[in-house]
Order: sequence, then C-alpha cells, then structure tokens
Amino acid sequence: MSSETAVPTTTGPAAAAPVAAASGTRTITTGPIAGSAKVHHPVPGAEHLRVPERRVLLSNGEHLDLYDTSGPYTESDDPAAFDLAGGLPALRASWLRPDAVPTERGTGGARTQLAWARVGVVTDEMRFVAAREGVDVELVRDEVARGRAVIPANRRHPEIEPMIIGKAFGVKINANIGNSAVTSSIEEEVEKMVWAARWGADTLMDLSTGKDIHETREWVLRNSPIPVGTVPLYQALEKVKGDPAKLTWEIYRDTVIEQAEQGVDYMTVHAGVLLRYVPLTARRVTGIVSRGGSIMAAWCLAHHQESFLYTHFAELCEILRDYDVTFSLGDGLRPGSIADANDAAQFAELRTLGELTKVAKSYGVQVMIEGPGHVPMHKIVENVRLEEELCEEAPFYTLGPLATDIAPAYDHITSAIGAAIIAQAGTAMLCYVTPKEHLGLPDRDDVKTGVITYKIAAHSADLAKGHPRAQLRDDALSRARFEFRWHDQFALSLDPDTARAFHDETLPAEPAKTAHFCSMCGPKFCSMRISADVREYAEKNGLTSVEAIEAGMAEKSSEFTDAGGRVYLPVTPAQPVTPR
Amino acid sequence: MSSETAVPTTTGPAAAAPVAAASGTRTITTGPIAGSAKVHHPVPGAEHLRVPERRVLLSNGEHLDLYDTSGPYTESDDPAAFDLAGGLPALRASWLRPDAVPTERGTGGARTQLAWARVGVVTDEMRFVAAREGVDVELVRDEVARGRAVIPANRRHPEIEPMIIGKAFGVKINANIGNSAVTSSIEEEVEKMVWAARWGADTLMDLSTGKDIHETREWVLRNSPIPVGTVPLYQALEKVKGDPAKLTWEIYRDTVIEQAEQGVDYMTVHAGVLLRYVPLTARRVTGIVSRGGSIMAAWCLAHHQESFLYTHFAELCEILRDYDVTFSLGDGLRPGSIADANDAAQFAELRTLGELTKVAKSYGVQVMIEGPGHVPMHKIVENVRLEEELCEEAPFYTLGPLATDIAPAYDHITSAIGAAIIAQAGTAMLCYVTPKEHLGLPDRDDVKTGVITYKIAAHSADLAKGHPRAQLRDDALSRARFEFRWHDQFALSLDPDTARAFHDETLPAEPAKTAHFCSMCGPKFCSMRISADVREYAEKNGLTSVEAIEAGMAEKSSEFTDAGGRVYLPVTPAQPVTPR
Repeated sequence: MSSETAVPTTTGPAAAAPVAAASGTRTITTGPIAGSAKVHHPVPGAEHLRVPERRVLLSNGEHLDLYDTSGPYTESDDPAAFDLAGGLPALRASWLRPDAVPTERGTGGARTQLAWARVGVVTDEMRFVAAREGVDVELVRDEVARGRAVIPANRRHPEIEPMIIGKAFGVKINANIGNSAVTSSIEEEVEKMVWAARWGADTLMDLSTGKDIHETREWVLRNSPIPVGTVPLYQALEKVKGDPAKLTWEIYRDTVIEQAEQGVDYMTVHAGVLLRYVPLTARRVTGIVSRGGSIMAAWCLAHHQESFLYTHFAELCEILRDYDVTFSLGDGLRPGSIADANDAAQFAELRTLGELTKVAKSYGVQVMIEGPGHVPMHKIVENVRLEEELCEEAPFYTLGPLATDIAPAYDHITSAIGAAIIAQAGTAMLCYVTPKEHLGLPDRDDVKTGVITYKIAAHSADLAKGHPRAQLRDDALSRARFEFRWHDQFALSLDPDTARAFHDETLPAEPAKTAHFCSMCGPKFCSMRISADVREYAEKNGLTSVEAIEAGMAEKSSEFTDAGGRVYLPVTPAQPVTPR
Repeated sequence: MSSETAVPTTTGPAAAAPVAAASGTRTITTGPIAGSAKVHHPVPGAEHLRVPERRVLLSNGEHLDLYDTSGPYTESDDPAAFDLAGGLPALRASWLRPDAVPTERGTGGARTQLAWARVGVVTDEMRFVAAREGVDVELVRDEVARGRAVIPANRRHPEIEPMIIGKAFGVKINANIGNSAVTSSIEEEVEKMVWAARWGADTLMDLSTGKDIHETREWVLRNSPIPVGTVPLYQALEKVKGDPAKLTWEIYRDTVIEQAEQGVDYMTVHAGVLLRYVPLTARRVTGIVSRGGSIMAAWCLAHHQESFLYTHFAELCEILRDYDVTFSLGDGLRPGSIADANDAAQFAELRTLGELTKVAKSYGVQVMIEGPGHVPMHKIVENVRLEEELCEEAPFYTLGPLATDIAPAYDHITSAIGAAIIAQAGTAMLCYVTPKEHLGLPDRDDVKTGVITYKIAAHSADLAKGHPRAQLRDDALSRARFEFRWHDQFALSLDPDTARAFHDETLPAEPAKTAHFCSMCGPKFCSMRISADVREYAEKNGLTSVEAIEAGMAEKSSEFTDAGGRVYLPVTPAQPVTPR
C-alpha cells in the first residue's frame, strides 16, 4: 500500500496528540491519530483526485497506509482551522459531471451512479472509490451497474469523500447520532460526527427527532467527510406534531425533497410494512421494534389503507433519482428478540423489499436493504441468502444482529458477534450498536466503543472473506508484537490511545516501550522472548527443518546450554494472563 | 425450570446488594446477585444431593431458575460467614464413593469418573451434574464413558460443586487468575476467584508463578466452589530457578503429585510439543506464544532430546488416575497471530495430542484438548473438525480464538467473536480473554468484563446449538423489555448492576423503573409502546389474521383514530439510538 507519490502532511510517530478544544460551546477533535500522518495518493490517470489514507509510521523505517474515514480533521491540530459555519471545502465541486457532457447516453434522464454505470460511463466517484479500495475501476463500475454496490453521494453533498458499499469491497460500518432537545447542542452533534469518523465510521445516520432538526442536519452535512443518511419519516412526524395518523404522502414527500436538497446521501424508507403484514406481528414476543415500522403500522391501521410509502413508491423514486439519493429500504418488521427472528412478518416484508428494489432500479435509483436486528447465530446466514435471492444482491445493511437478548449493557458485544458472522456471509455495511443500546443515551465514549467494536467485526469479516489488503495490518501488528516494538503495536491498533493507556497502567516509563517484555509475564518469563531465542539458536545450528532435527544432532545440545541461546527465567515473575 | 421443592434462602427482588467488606487485607464479595435469590433443588432419587440455582424473582409473580456457579458466597450478605483459612464445607465428603464398595467392577484399578462410567457405575457426581444440566443421568454417564465429556473433580477437592464439560451440555467458560509478587496478596487472589465465579466462571485456572505459589493455590482450592486447573510446569520451573534447561522429569513429577494431593482438578500438560516440531515454527510471524510451549521447546533444544512430558506420559497417566485429575492437553504450538493459524506446527501437535488422548483414556484418565488462539473466522471450524477426528471428540477447550490481531485493548471482543463461532461448532469450554490481553495485568473490572463477555459467547452458542433451556432466559428478558418491567430486565441480564447503572444515568428516579418508555426515545416516541397499542387495537377488532385484514375492514379505521388505540407522539422527544 505504499506509494512514491504520497504526500505526508505531518511526520514522525510522535505526531501531536489529538486536540479537543472548546470555544464557547464548540468542541471539535482534530489532529492526527497517534503514530500516524495523513497522506493523499493521486489517482493514476485522474490526478485531480487524491485519495486520503492514514500512514502509520513504524519505528523500523517501514510504513503502512490504511483506509481512512476521518476527513480533513486529522490533518491539522488546530480546531480553529475548521469553520463549522462555513463547512468543509466542496471537494467534489470540480469533479467530472457526466451530465455536463451534452450527449444522450441512454440513461433515460437518470443522473445517478447506477444509471451511468449501466451505460458504461466511469465517473470520478467511481475512480475515487476504486483507488480507495485498491481495485480496478471496472470492478466498481460493474458492481454498481449490477446493483450489487452503491456509492451514496447526493449531487448536492459535494463535501464528502465518496465511498462504496457492496460485498465485493471492504465491509463498512455506520454510526448513528441524533440531537436531543435536552442534552445536545448542534455543535455537539457535529463533534460526535467528527469523533465517529475519526475512529472509522464509514457513514453516519442523523436520527435527530427534536426541534432544530433542519438546522442540525445542515451543520452535520456541511461538515461531514462521510455520507449522511436519515429517516425522513421522523421529521415528517414532527410536522404533524407526533401523530402518525395525521401523516400524509404530501407532507412526507415535501420532507424528502427538503432533505434531498440539503444533500442527504441515503434515506431509510420503511415502504415494506404493508397493512396485511401487521397481524403477522400479533404473536411476537416483542412486536414491532422499529420506530419507523411501528409508525407506519399505526398509520395503516388508523386509515385501513395501504402504506403511502408503498403506494407512492414510484414518485419517491423520481425524487431520489434527481439527486442521486440512495434508498435504504428499511426493515420495519425486523425481529426485536431471539424469539422473533426469521419469522413470517420479517420475511414477508423482505419479499416486498425485493419487489421495491426492482422498481427503484428501473428508475436508476441506487438501493440497499436493511436487515436485523436480533438473530441467533444459526439463523443468521439464512437472512443473507434470502436477501440476495429476493433483492438481486443489493447491498445488505444490518443492525448487528444481536446473537442473544440477555446482555443489556454489553449489546455492542452481543451484536458484534452477529455482525461479524453476517458480514462474513456477505453483508456490505454494519450499523453499530453501543453499550447503551436498550438502556439510555450513548455518550461520547459509547460512540467510540461502538465504532471500534464494529471495526473489529468488519475487519474480522474482511479477513474471513480474503480481502486482499486486510491481513497486511494484522501481520504488521503481530510482527511489531513479536519484536517488542510497543509504539508500533499501539500505532497499528484500532485504538492507539487506549492500547497505550492499558500498557502504561503498569509500565508507564518510556524505556518500557522498547523493552523485550511487558507486565504480563515480567522481564524474562516471556514466551515471545524464549521463542525468539529458540529460533535464533535453531537457525544458527541448521535446525530449521524436521530432517535436520531427525538426522540426530545431539552434539548440539550442550552448545545451546552453554551459549547465549540459554534462557533464564526469574524466580518471581509478575502475574500471567495468558492461560498456559 | 421451576421446582416445588426448591428452597429460597433469601427472598424478594430487592435482596441486599453485594457486600465487599475488608478485614485487614481481606476483601470478599458476598450476597445475592441483584434481583435473585439462591435456591437448592434436591436431586430426585438422591435427596442428599442438592443442586444450587439462582432464582430470578420477577415482578409479575413468575420466576426463572438459572444455572449458578457462584457457590455459597451468594447465600449470605456476611463476609465474616466465610472463614477463608478454614475453607468451604466439604460438600462431596459424604457422597457415594464407588470404590468404597468392595466389588471388582472391572475398572482395572482406576478410580475415575471415566472408569466408572465405562463399567456402568453412576456416581453422585454424575447425578449432580445431570440435575444441574437438566438432562438424564444416563446421557451424562454415556458421554463421560465415550470420552466426549469430563467431570473435573479431584478426589481430594471435596469443596467443589461438580460440573461437566462436553459438547452435549451447556458451553462452559474458564477464568484465569494468578498471583504476582508485586501486586497481589493471597486474599486478593481468593477474592478474584469468588468474583469470577459470581459472574459465571465455570472453572478457574490458577496460573500463579511467583513465590507463595503453594500457599496461594491452597487458599484458592479450599475456598473455590468451581474446579481449579493449573499448569504444573510453572511451579516446576520455579523449583529450578527459572532455567528451563534444568528441568527434569523427576522435578516435574513431584510437582504434579504435590498439586494433585492439594486437590487440583485439571492440569495443562504441553506433552505434544515434540523436538521435531520446533523447526516448523521457524518461519512463523509470532513463533511460539504459549509459555509452556516455549519452555518445552527450549528444553528439547537444550538437551536435544524428546520432551520428558512425552516420554514419561504413561507415568503421568498413572499419577492423574489415582486422584482423578483430568488432563488438559496443552496446545504449546497454538498460533499467536492470524498469519500462523492452522499451520503445520499447530496441526502436527494436535495429531500428537490425539495419540496421547488414546493413551490417557487407556489408563482411565479423563482428557480435554486445548485449542487456539488467533484464528480468522473462516479457519475456525476446521479446528473443531480436526480435533474431533484426531482426539476422539474429547472436549475441546479453546482460548478465544481472536478473529483479528488489530485490536489490543479490545481483545475480549475480538476473541468473543471467535469463541462464539468455535463453541457453536462444538467447543465445550472457552477460556476467557480480558481487555488487558497483550498489554498488562487484568484488574478486578477486567476479570468481570472477561467473564461477562465469555458468558455472552457461550450463551450465544447454546442458543445456536439448540440447548433446551437456553432461550428461556432470552424470552423472559425480552418479554420484560416489551412490557417495560425494567427491574426484571436488569435481574434477568448477565450483569444487573451495570444494566441498571446505565439506565439510571439518564432516568435515576424509581418511577422510571415501571414507566412505559426509556431515555432513548422519550416518554411516547417508543416503538414498543406503539407496537403494544397496535396489537391491542388489532386484537380488539379481530385484525389478527391476514384473512381478516384482506376481507376489508375499512370501517374500523375511524374507530382506531378515535379510540385509545390512537398514538400520540411528542414534538421534542429525546435522542434516539436505534437506527431507524
């Protein structure tokens, strides 16, 4: 992943620690991640495109460049460099717009990544994401054309660094934020977005439901380097003072247009909750747990009519097409408990989402499909297979799923188990769950824990799927571990700050960062150190093959005992944590 | 899981909070888990045996009895009730000893659970674990006889409440402790054991390596309600002042006898690290990461002889047989990184462990097999299948495995993903990993986090394997969630204290514990509430089938709008965390 043309913007493993500066109510985290510097790789053949990466600078002179979602915020240590009111630079403003070319390309008027991909047009967004993923641009175009991948990038959201969601690419993760009239200021929501992106969130959903909902979204959009999704139903509901029965197609439509104009990149639409599916939830343990799903179920029953999201779906497609907003077809009937997983209600809705997928694509609109929820491990893969079958392999975007219901306060973990498994099976994006799920409001620490936990699930799946670049990072970190390069271990980890803090709890002094031991086993009672000694001796004496060993080299044994290869262990080592 | 004959020892959901009292340096946690009381179920037909369970007392008058590992410590709120120097009562002292019966039963002199099971003798330990697991005792006897399950219960460790490890039963978890000359007192180690058992550890490994190693183990054994395992090699190494080359069979043998006499229930023996396997680790990214494995590799090279653990294995079997100590055949060459997973060294050792399994069983000694380590998800199942094939399905006991190397400080999570998957595939016991793995010493909080995380993995696997009782707890908790019984949610969770604390961060007042909402979505903007309203309306109006809906009941719609079924939502709800 190295490149001669990369341009480091800061240097050295001792790059400045992140700065959280407050100015009035504003707090924004900036500065490089510890041990890393931001670099930009020009895209060959499209030099106006420069792909950001995080360069981890290793103490042995090597470096590793990593996919980076953090945006410009990790370039500068100065919060004042970011004018929140002014927003980020409009990165994509100067990019090629195929529709600026005055030719009929057969897209039927659609100006979407999907429409262009189908007629063979390669956009700058495709070039950018191909370079970012390290794959050929033709793979990107083909996957988008087939509807197996989406590039959520509203034409009116030029600030983002485009990314791609699809099973042929790295598994992505989404973080949720949302304002609260009680606890959050708008600036705090922007900071949560920056914070989530810093730790690896690929997209963000703004689930604000309170007042200032438009203003909050505006600030988030203008300052976000990652695509932003919403659930327009929430704002529509605010407009009718919270009474689902008063919702109308017109109010909803106007809300969608309002949000599309602002630049929202993808929208959750619960158009698969049909009137006739509501009775299927009657005997469930936990009923309907999706807020959007329950609102639409209430509307359908109140009017005894089919959902306006379903009956007006074609009109919705026309609106989204004009902005290239991506559908995220919501799973309003997803299971909220192990008992309800994979039931008739859930799969009936999925079948309807499959129909709607075909409709959306016929309009040239990009589509992804939302998935559960709460599912025991043995029922997870069926979700992916059925989604692929019914929805033409549109990117699957799941919430966890939680593999058990019994661990509130640890649902980031219960869901990471399900998330890793469902991603290995082909899910393209994972919506994070924080430790506060089911219990309360996630704070800043919870957001970080949720993001890091989901990066673990996504990366584990990338490894299992054989993603060509994924294991480079594991190998680099494991080599650093075996060679006792502690700074490099920290820098290569998902969370350098916490890894270092845990290490320093018992060995805070700087020399311990190069010592050939740690506090787990003490200075010499260390398997890695013994192992290194064993290897050195074996190589020096030609004992590196089974044949050499079996040829009988008993005369070597006394040499080992006398030589530096001998390993002494102390009488009172520190406490172990590895088990045997 | 209820029983008419159960005897609650404390009552009421408001049972006293745990007490951590210090007397001198002594601190021990006692008292019931919040919302639960200890009960004891007499075993039908063997009334002298009483199986402990944790009874969760629900606010709707129901209760759920759960498998409980916490021992007598959760019966009393009084730390003074436990005389650490005197130890726990010798529960098994009065139990039936088949060898007390003066008949030759054909066991060849072996006095082990395995030997008795093979000749059709049902022991009290088998009766106890059968009742504890809720299965027929004949299943227990048969699985033990086949070597597919073990009951680690040294004849000289009468204090424990016996348990069974095998794929036909609930997945178990192990917690590690171990003293440090620097940071731990002996009493602190006992408290760590009590603490680990409180949160669900099924067995404990005492990995002490410092001085007072014998004394520490004595205190732990005498006060432990759960089986205790060790790695005798660590103490043997202390006896030769930490120089592996100075180890001898005689020193090792005497250490094993010393520990067996004390009552150690299972011992990790790295007898599969053969001289000829050492070169197979030469090109690994992380060499040999097992401490026992690296010590034996160093010994083999230093002497250029085959491991004394291997050459004297038959003698070892004779010793373990006399006490009914269970072998835990160690994976000294387990992979320490993703790159090294499933390599030649690892599987060569596993093949040797298979040979040794047959030898041990021929002596009537119970055996389990230790497994990795660091393994990417797609290579996990192969480990189980190969272990089953080579080791006659002896219980597999794995460390994680970690599904990626890149998340130090979160390795409880990286490994919980692997642990859940490997347990679903048939692993019988999971050795926990704490957040401090690879970085430092786990403290009390880390021990709890490790145990809870591994209970999640084990329980998720129980659900996936279709364990007959597992889902009862998920269903009870989910029903409590849907019905807004907050106290019951907390009490049914793996960690009631933390679940309640998270909830109370935003809604501390007692009335919020029965309110039909939480801080996530605010008082009325709640999918579960809407869903309950929808269900109530549908049932009242016969709309509980697709047919009824499709029959056309438009006249009902105005009723819903006018009736109590109408759902109002507020203008400014609190911040959401569920995504859509």
